[in-house]
Amino acid sequence: MKKIAVTETYEDGQAIIKEGTHGEGTYVIMSGQVAIKIKIDNVVITITELEKGDIFGHMSLIDRQPRSASAVAVGQVKVGLFDKDYLDTEINKTSEDFRIILRALVDRLRSTTAKYTNLCIKHYKLTGSIE
Amino acid sequence: MKKIAVTETYEDGQAIIKEGTHGEGTYVIMSGQVAIKIKIDNVVITITELEKGDIFGHMSLIDRQPRSASAVAVGQVKVGLFDKDYLDTEINKTSEDFRIILRALVDRLRSTTAKYTNLCIKHYKLTGSIE
Repeated sequence: MKKIAVTETYEDGQAIIKEGTHGEGTYVIMSGQVAIKIKIDNVVITITELEKGDIFGHMSLIDRQPRSASAVAVGQVKVGLFDKDYLDTEINKTSEDFRIILRALVDRLRSTTAKYTNLCIKHYKLTGSIE
Repeated sequence: MKKIAVTETYEDGQAIIKEGTHGEGTYVIMSGQVAIKIKIDNVVITITELEKGDIFGHMSLIDRQPRSASAVAVGQVKVGLFDKDYLDTEINKTSEDFRIILRALVDRLRSTTAKYTNLCIKHYKLTGSIE
């Protein structure tokens, strides 16, 4: 990964990205772990846990929509923030038709994540377990 | 959508894409509806239903992995198949770092879909309902 503009360090429990906010930063984890969390009906669901080398924040990069989830540091975490100009240049190299395909990919990810979290809540209300 | 190489027509119940097969075709629905289905533990789960203008088959385009789901015609369906050379050219315009970001997006979609289908099965075994 060469196109990192800055690195940032977060302590355990700090939010790197907050669900519902606007922002286009795309991150790569340089050390530590990050939990991707969604709050629904006052229940917090951990969608996934990411580790070194994993990327997050890339959905808003493609579709410019609000953040679908929060990204929270698990222990101390060091992340690299991709250079925005570099990413904009890369996206602008592609044609509008191709960007429609990329946006469709992000749409599918957003809708599948929503279906998963809704079923998690349904399952939680039924069983009392978040798993 | 301009970069359509061919159009194909499928009848109700026919598979346009089969789960687990290799293939890189990316489709857009020109008329009709398509159900995206995954079979797990002998239960078929409909992940989503797509309609005119929706795109499918674009995950394998990015990561060249086997098809994660089947795409099945609901009634008669007409689909357009994107020109493969056009898509390859578009992808090759972008840098390797950017393609890592796109692959991470597809990875997340594959893993979220797997989590969703696994929870569907768990919920089904508990309630007898696929919903």
